[in-house]
Amino acid sequence: MDDRRLLRELPRDEALRLLAEARMGRVVFTQRALPAIRPVNHAFVDGHLIIRTNLGSALASAVGGPGSVVAYEADAIDADTRTGWSVVVTGMARLVPDPVEKSRYEGLVEPWIDNSADCVLRIHPDIVNGYRLVAAGETMPAGPVAA
Amino acid sequence: MDDRRLLRELPRDEALRLLAEARMGRVVFTQRALPAIRPVNHAFVDGHLIIRTNLGSALASAVGGPGSVVAYEADAIDADTRTGWSVVVTGMARLVPDPVEKSRYEGLVEPWIDNSADCVLRIHPDIVNGYRLVAAGETMPAGPVAA
Repeated sequence: MDDRRLLRELPRDEALRLLAEARMGRVVFTQRALPAIRPVNHAFVDGHLIIRTNLGSALASAVGGPGSVVAYEADAIDADTRTGWSVVVTGMARLVPDPVEKSRYEGLVEPWIDNSADCVLRIHPDIVNGYRLVAAGETMPAGPVAA
Repeated sequence: MDDRRLLRELPRDEALRLLAEARMGRVVFTQRALPAIRPVNHAFVDGHLIIRTNLGSALASAVGGPGSVVAYEADAIDADTRTGWSVVVTGMARLVPDPVEKSRYEGLVEPWIDNSADCVLRIHPDIVNGYRLVAAGETMPAGPVAA
């Protein structure tokens, strides 16, 4: 029982700081009415998550036009110690059409995959949920949170 | 340009082997019409993904009754070398109601979080998508795949 962990909720600013420091995460969206997930690298710029993708991709189709609500998750959880953190942001994702703005973001987020990531996506963190997995005896500022 | 990577698709059996060896991943589902994601530990038993959750959780509500299609993702991607793998399984998730079967799975998947994970969820891997991120010069059995 000693290796069971508690979830401690993170304040919004700490959750966003962890997300900003992480260089990759997973974008979650709906593709043909089914849940879809895709690992991707990101940057956190002026309070928004910035990612790049292909115009022809499922993700670009999902958020094309007026935009779409997506979730974005980053984590660093050690399966051996069973400790770490996870942050989930939920918010409206929109393609960035303005060429000047797009070009600025392109300079800040280099695609890892060698393909034409010709779209820039900006996600507004409307809802931020973050927690740490901590050992039961560990003291943390925030109180325990039911899973 | 040298640190750009290619995506190489993984055969189904190799993707499922990587998933089975990983001890945690992220379950993706729909919660009140919004995309939701939750890190969780898992076991791979008899061709199915097994995870545990709370009866009162959003996940249990989402798949309760007749079940629901979820996605499940596991990965091991190194942000420094930009190499690694990701596997996404999409399929029907159902609560396991049979007490004997449930008890067997409970013996194989110990919850990491100290709460009453009283539900066992079984996910059938209907669709399996896996890839490796490899350096452009690296030779691999499978051909390159467009992102």
